[in-house]
Amino acid sequence: MGKVVVFGEVMMRLSTEEHLRFCQADKLQVTYGGGEANVAISLSNFNIKTAIVSRFPNNDMGDACIKSLRKFGVDTSHVLLGGQRLGIYFLETGADQRGSKVVYDRDNSSFATMTPGMVDWDRVLEGATWFHWSGLSAAIGENPTKVLAEGVQEAHKRGITISCDVNLRSNLWNYGKQPNQVMPPLVAMCDVIFGNEYDAEHAMEIDVGRDNRGKFSNESFINTSGMVMRKYPRVKSIVTTRRGSINASHNTLRALMFDGTMLHETSTYSITHIVDRVGGGDAFTAGVIFGMLQWPANYEKIINFGIAASSLKHTIMGDANLVSLQEVEDFMK
Amino acid sequence: MGKVVVFGEVMMRLSTEEHLRFCQADKLQVTYGGGEANVAISLSNFNIKTAIVSRFPNNDMGDACIKSLRKFGVDTSHVLLGGQRLGIYFLETGADQRGSKVVYDRDNSSFATMTPGMVDWDRVLEGATWFHWSGLSAAIGENPTKVLAEGVQEAHKRGITISCDVNLRSNLWNYGKQPNQVMPPLVAMCDVIFGNEYDAEHAMEIDVGRDNRGKFSNESFINTSGMVMRKYPRVKSIVTTRRGSINASHNTLRALMFDGTMLHETSTYSITHIVDRVGGGDAFTAGVIFGMLQWPANYEKIINFGIAASSLKHTIMGDANLVSLQEVEDFMK
Amino acid sequence: MGKVVVFGEVMMRLSTEEHLRFCQADKLQVTYGGGEANVAISLSNFNIKTAIVSRFPNNDMGDACIKSLRKFGVDTSHVLLGGQRLGIYFLETGADQRGSKVVYDRDNSSFATMTPGMVDWDRVLEGATWFHWSGLSAAIGENPTKVLAEGVQEAHKRGITISCDVNLRSNLWNYGKQPNQVMPPLVAMCDVIFGNEYDAEHAMEIDVGRDNRGKFSNESFINTSGMVMRKYPRVKSIVTTRRGSINASHNTLRALMFDGTMLHETSTYSITHIVDRVGGGDAFTAGVIFGMLQWPANYEKIINFGIAASSLKHTIMGDANLVSLQEVEDFMK
Amino acid sequence: MGKVVVFGEVMMRLSTEEHLRFCQADKLQVTYGGGEANVAISLSNFNIKTAIVSRFPNNDMGDACIKSLRKFGVDTSHVLLGGQRLGIYFLETGADQRGSKVVYDRDNSSFATMTPGMVDWDRVLEGATWFHWSGLSAAIGENPTKVLAEGVQEAHKRGITISCDVNLRSNLWNYGKQPNQVMPPLVAMCDVIFGNEYDAEHAMEIDVGRDNRGKFSNESFINTSGMVMRKYPRVKSIVTTRRGSINASHNTLRALMFDGTMLHETSTYSITHIVDRVGGGDAFTAGVIFGMLQWPANYEKIINFGIAASSLKHTIMGDANLVSLQEVEDFMK
Amino acid sequence: MGKVVVFGEVMMRLSTEEHLRFCQADKLQVTYGGGEANVAISLSNFNIKTAIVSRFPNNDMGDACIKSLRKFGVDTSHVLLGGQRLGIYFLETGADQRGSKVVYDRDNSSFATMTPGMVDWDRVLEGATWFHWSGLSAAIGENPTKVLAEGVQEAHKRGITISCDVNLRSNLWNYGKQPNQVMPPLVAMCDVIFGNEYDAEHAMEIDVGRDNRGKFSNESFINTSGMVMRKYPRVKSIVTTRRGSINASHNTLRALMFDGTMLHETSTYSITHIVDRVGGGDAFTAGVIFGMLQWPANYEKIINFGIAASSLKHTIMGDANLVSLQEVEDFMK
Amino acid sequence: MGKVVVFGEVMMRLSTEEHLRFCQADKLQVTYGGGEANVAISLSNFNIKTAIVSRFPNNDMGDACIKSLRKFGVDTSHVLLGGQRLGIYFLETGADQRGSKVVYDRDNSSFATMTPGMVDWDRVLEGATWFHWSGLSAAIGENPTKVLAEGVQEAHKRGITISCDVNLRSNLWNYGKQPNQVMPPLVAMCDVIFGNEYDAEHAMEIDVGRDNRGKFSNESFINTSGMVMRKYPRVKSIVTTRRGSINASHNTLRALMFDGTMLHETSTYSITHIVDRVGGGDAFTAGVIFGMLQWPANYEKIINFGIAASSLKHTIMGDANLVSLQEVEDFMK
Repeated sequence: MGKVVVFGEVMMRLSTEEHLRFCQADKLQVTYGGGEANVAISLSNFNIKTAIVSRFPNNDMGDACIKSLRKFGVDTSHVLLGGQRLGIYFLETGADQRGSKVVYDRDNSSFATMTPGMVDWDRVLEGATWFHWSGLSAAIGENPTKVLAEGVQEAHKRGITISCDVNLRSNLWNYGKQPNQVMPPLVAMCDVIFGNEYDAEHAMEIDVGRDNRGKFSNESFINTSGMVMRKYPRVKSIVTTRRGSINASHNTLRALMFDGTMLHETSTYSITHIVDRVGGGDAFTAGVIFGMLQWPANYEKIINFGIAASSLKHTIMGDANLVSLQEVEDFMK
Repeated sequence: MGKVVVFGEVMMRLSTEEHLRFCQADKLQVTYGGGEANVAISLSNFNIKTAIVSRFPNNDMGDACIKSLRKFGVDTSHVLLGGQRLGIYFLETGADQRGSKVVYDRDNSSFATMTPGMVDWDRVLEGATWFHWSGLSAAIGENPTKVLAEGVQEAHKRGITISCDVNLRSNLWNYGKQPNQVMPPLVAMCDVIFGNEYDAEHAMEIDVGRDNRGKFSNESFINTSGMVMRKYPRVKSIVTTRRGSINASHNTLRALMFDGTMLHETSTYSITHIVDRVGGGDAFTAGVIFGMLQWPANYEKIINFGIAASSLKHTIMGDANLVSLQEVEDFMK
Repeated sequence: MGKVVVFGEVMMRLSTEEHLRFCQADKLQVTYGGGEANVAISLSNFNIKTAIVSRFPNNDMGDACIKSLRKFGVDTSHVLLGGQRLGIYFLETGADQRGSKVVYDRDNSSFATMTPGMVDWDRVLEGATWFHWSGLSAAIGENPTKVLAEGVQEAHKRGITISCDVNLRSNLWNYGKQPNQVMPPLVAMCDVIFGNEYDAEHAMEIDVGRDNRGKFSNESFINTSGMVMRKYPRVKSIVTTRRGSINASHNTLRALMFDGTMLHETSTYSITHIVDRVGGGDAFTAGVIFGMLQWPANYEKIINFGIAASSLKHTIMGDANLVSLQEVEDFMK
Repeated sequence: MGKVVVFGEVMMRLSTEEHLRFCQADKLQVTYGGGEANVAISLSNFNIKTAIVSRFPNNDMGDACIKSLRKFGVDTSHVLLGGQRLGIYFLETGADQRGSKVVYDRDNSSFATMTPGMVDWDRVLEGATWFHWSGLSAAIGENPTKVLAEGVQEAHKRGITISCDVNLRSNLWNYGKQPNQVMPPLVAMCDVIFGNEYDAEHAMEIDVGRDNRGKFSNESFINTSGMVMRKYPRVKSIVTTRRGSINASHNTLRALMFDGTMLHETSTYSITHIVDRVGGGDAFTAGVIFGMLQWPANYEKIINFGIAASSLKHTIMGDANLVSLQEVEDFMK
Repeated sequence: MGKVVVFGEVMMRLSTEEHLRFCQADKLQVTYGGGEANVAISLSNFNIKTAIVSRFPNNDMGDACIKSLRKFGVDTSHVLLGGQRLGIYFLETGADQRGSKVVYDRDNSSFATMTPGMVDWDRVLEGATWFHWSGLSAAIGENPTKVLAEGVQEAHKRGITISCDVNLRSNLWNYGKQPNQVMPPLVAMCDVIFGNEYDAEHAMEIDVGRDNRGKFSNESFINTSGMVMRKYPRVKSIVTTRRGSINASHNTLRALMFDGTMLHETSTYSITHIVDRVGGGDAFTAGVIFGMLQWPANYEKIINFGIAASSLKHTIMGDANLVSLQEVEDFMK
Repeated sequence: MGKVVVFGEVMMRLSTEEHLRFCQADKLQVTYGGGEANVAISLSNFNIKTAIVSRFPNNDMGDACIKSLRKFGVDTSHVLLGGQRLGIYFLETGADQRGSKVVYDRDNSSFATMTPGMVDWDRVLEGATWFHWSGLSAAIGENPTKVLAEGVQEAHKRGITISCDVNLRSNLWNYGKQPNQVMPPLVAMCDVIFGNEYDAEHAMEIDVGRDNRGKFSNESFINTSGMVMRKYPRVKSIVTTRRGSINASHNTLRALMFDGTMLHETSTYSITHIVDRVGGGDAFTAGVIFGMLQWPANYEKIINFGIAASSLKHTIMGDANLVSLQEVEDFMK
């Protein structure tokens, strides 16, 4: 199997211990994470070669972030050094009826100030068979989006499989553009989409019809996915998770995948004692990418592997899914 | 809205970490709490002005206790300094089938040795619109009870709304008096009572009748509340929580309020992953006082706000409910 | 009541905090435990005199292990000092759908290199009324088994009650012998057996019949226990727990005891927020031994006490059950 | 004594524990500090009324910062809420031959984006007898400097004593202005200057003469101070510390004060086991301000109190000097 | 060698971590200590049999205290259970120029409410060859002093060697008696006295003469010791340490012993990086008692062993000296 | 600059926090280290490409060790997986007059059971310009020594520069061979030797003459180095540190290098507040290797860089020197 290259921002995560509130904490736990980096780390744990393209400041925080990725086996030789700061997000892990709370402090990060031409895509994509990105990068600003577009185009040009986690969070789109203005040309070059009906409507210019807005059923997923595939013929698989949030400590989780013809669906997992749900979606994404590399035609296995990986993630502190291939397979039995 | 003044003891709380037993702990977590202080802190978090009347030793423990209250916005300028020691309570947080364990070490505290005349009630009650006290103070000894009586009378004289959390714990009444000998004249000056059938029988001289003893139903609450209001005509609202303890990590919670005419009742909350249930009742009390200040006639809203606030408290380490008004309102939705 | 003597290995346990994975932990919690030591500590907490026979290295780890046992009241004056090392086991406490993970590093421990003649059984067994051992010792190697056999014989000779926790873990039997080759003569000298149908088949040479293999029902337990008692006439009670593992945080637990005539059975406990399940079986064993000493004929009470003690253990960090007699009795009410 | 008002930025300080390097730390200690806030906290500990004018984001970090100041008695009612973020500085506490390391991440803070007109100086300065500011605010940008100028002018207008800690750190002046372009008109309104020969040359437009550049002797301090006072006739006292850095754990410290006529000088303190030297200068400043309020004419006592306070600060974790008046006085004996 | 019995109070010690001030600490370290218990633990570490006579409350704190002593090998079977509480002392470990700070909260402890007749001295002193007590017990109140007197008399009656650490701290004598009223008859029964010129004057009724008051020289020690021995002919050795406090992190230490004929003196140890100096004196006492048991006539060796043991104590967290005989001997080389 | 390959064992290091004794610690800090790995990590921090040849068990401990090395940039692709266990060493960090204490538990490690033929030296040494080993590997047993010999020969064959840190610790040589029987043929292939007079006598068969035994002076170093170079003509530089141990917290350090013609000597560094001296020698070794790669002829600069790097190491927790090239150079100024 070839190398999976991811492009995206990595942030310092500062989280309170043992469910403390921010104002109680006189210590914060430090980890590093970001949607795409989480995918890369998880794939590395499944023995897939991975590399990340990103930009960190040339200071101790950037250095610590590199070391953290390197520890988990991600090739950091394509990380650019420069800019002012590493983005930060503060996390207060909730419990029971009190939800987790995130405070972002990521403006003006080294990643956000990347500009086109900075990345040597020839070198980056050498030996790559998969390129993964997410809508988070497109939300940050025009320049990162341009750099992202370079990457997607270069990967596309080389026939590399491209996956996109749409991951639309409207509160992060603050630079004047709407997702539907930015995402469609990038989505058009993708083979695999992680997204749901909402993402389709707001980031892929799909008009689900007045009566279907806000609907989330197996049927609506099939219908919407069909529309996406007709509009973006390169897309061959659309995958999503359905999360039920009973409370901050107890969620349910299942996954759907549409392969252009039929819907594949996992059973529903009940996760009753959540340790850390951040990155649960990225763990699923990594699981699905791994499955597609490993068992290309076996859609059932792919999403079941993905949802099993994601379930296990909820028991692990930090953004990234630190489980081995063996552990996911043992759990699936 | 005016200032809420509370009167009561504050203790140093020394609790084991991560469910350790006392004999395992080589570190104890330090927080400060007391029924009335917990109410004051919670109200401060809802942007109500609060002040506490209490007495701490003039040493580093008293100073740390003041700093802790001040941090959360409680006016500590009426705290007297003197006496021998800050009361302590040791807490071993249980889990599942092992209940939490409290060991009190509070005798001879600076609060317990307060004497009448020490408090300048004129200064304390200036600008106050609410005075809150609890039966815990009356349990400590004759002198604190006399000081408490001063406060209740002075508040009564000034037409300040008075609330009492009866909070009857018979194991704390060790100085030779029974609650029924001490509490009635104080209760008689109150507008709002936090208490249940048991409290009525043992601390308000209500004879619920031989057949009704030990009964806790909606009906018994209505009947008993009626009797209380007839005996204490100033009392206009009686409020209580009903807690179901499935195990130390899982409780249910609902609230009842009798307004003299009809019963108001919340739905039942299931709290499945308790972080710290100490102070859950105080969080409810604070929520109800806030509600009464904010939406005076809206009993449904008041107790629903109270029970929501209390639910959230169960997820927060320490005695006090560190949630904002916004957070309670978001949770209620 | 006389003294209970246990024989067995004690290991240093190094466990990750707060569900961290091994690769995340930069601190490990240190406790000391072993099946038989856990029984001794638990009995000490019930005010039974206990002593342990074991062997630790004459270094700081051995010393810390002695101090740990002594703290909980176990007489360590019969612990031999010598050999190379204290066995270690690494524990990663799982959560929810991720099971706990144990990595043993116990080869060549001071215990494993014990040889016959080292123990002064006369001195050890003076004043003893009960001798407890487990199949774990027999799994380690020929020499520890010979020392164990000495102990069992010497106890037998003196008419001391003997109990055995078969505790068959096939992955620990690595020195070329099968349990059925080693255990039968030792089991033959026992009065009380902690074991189930699997243990009977593989460690007591019981042929349950082709159709009954792998069956675990009340009936199969009665039948197998009957066969055991016919083969080993000294055995008067056979006891076991039945554990249902819903996930790593939620188990169910009940116990069965066959007294030669009839089956005694507890109700099923649901343990929904497990803190640490290691040693849950040892806590049961200790509870049953205590019950047999305290209420010899009362089988119902004995196993109910045992299962209550075991339930509480699941809420306590470390291998050993740190609850008092009073606490178990309060919980049983 | 009246109220001391300080104006300045407060940052979240994230420091590694126990001399760990940034890349080793998986926890960071959280405190809050800033030169002027440190002065205010220290004065509060000496029972002086203090208030701070600053601007924090309206999020949990801003709230925690307010709570932290309030805990130590600083009036935070003049803190404005708004803007994007709380400035951060990362601190790696050095040891011995490895110096401490600071990484600033403070651009675009809520303070840095303050604009003139935001502060209600009438309300702020009501009852104030002292206004303290530092050159750190002037280094941040034009807008904060304008707000600062408002404050200095308003204080000046009201005849409030004004002190300035020049605190010139050239690496912080990044917005295109030089200190000598900005500081002189502000210095001209001050009564007390904390600064040395370097500060005079670069921030007060004093030409010490070619031969005296870079000289730091008692004589050069007298000469330079004289020049400052001639140029800025309102300045009546110039104070500085002289620090000798043997290594990161061992410093020497003494202080000089020129009163317009003569030099006052403390003996040299040797601080051999530094716990945290950040804020040592602010502790001195607070001590001197306290001394000037308490013993106005007694220069010897003033700087000796200041240097004693500063010495003690070096033993205290965090930016602020948490010692009481009594403790400084006891130490001076 | 026979058993050493000590009599004295044991307190829970709650100390801040890493030089934090009380108001900063949200965790406190828990250990247990007391002058006489510290001696017993240290002697246990030198393989001497020890037992303690004391009184603890019958609650979890008392239980944890027993477990702590038992861990280090002290026989706790003579500890009485009863009374209200375990005494507490709070410790803030200073650094450099900031001294350590102790806040006592020990009134009404279980020990302080002991009464004569409670202790079964026959059983306690069976097999004892040494009895050790200190002036701390006599400072607590009349009843503990009476119990102490019982012990000293009973030991005296049986010809057991008796040592007393005078340990005069005038701030602890608060029940109306002066040391000189209480201590002399007890001192008269002692063989070994740990004390200096100050102790002699204030607790042994020695009039050192107007000119010698407050003098601490080798000569004054010889003279005073001679006077003590003439007044109390049973006393055969008087021992003391001389501590020089350069700062809280750096002390010097040496010891003097007068044997009735000549002075023995150790060289001066410089302890430059103190970890915890509490119990340094008790470590010396234990070392001297050990030396007297081991090398009865060898005064040089005795005090050198004592001072070496005490030096090492300064590097160990907690009250008690956790070093082995081997370690002290290695250090002496 | 090419790649530096090191060969050696890596152990899990379990150290007590804050100078606690082993018997006090209920947590142990986990890091990973070994003489040669420490050199590799340090070189990686100086931006040298490094790789390690070693053998770890195929379990979570081996995996965590790999991750730890990878974090700091060491290529772990040549680490073999297999064998039983990762060696462990326990470390109790001393203070002041109490030395640090190490307890090894490394027998039967995966490294110790390596056998010749396991390593693919062709692949390992591809692109390497330097090979570093130490006498620690030769102390473990015959098989590791044979594997080491393979490596040295293969490197020699390829003309790769070879350095050896003799690092003779006689207590580690337990398999029946003496260093002088094993080391000489390996030393003969080296270019650079880290060793002193003692090493020369006991591991390089140098007879320093009866009168010179145990002498450590500049002269003895020159003389012995000369003898070494005559016996082993390939050796071109001999380097050593001279450490003076004032106490466990305060050491002095200087270095000597003989280049065949003359002695180069650094000044003496006084390290007064040691955080962690383990790995101080390895930090020096790495510094010297770096210097030789960077400034080949500049011996003064080389050893001054080495000793500066080593000094800084003493301030860093863990075995490895986590300082950058820039930081060492800044410190040298």
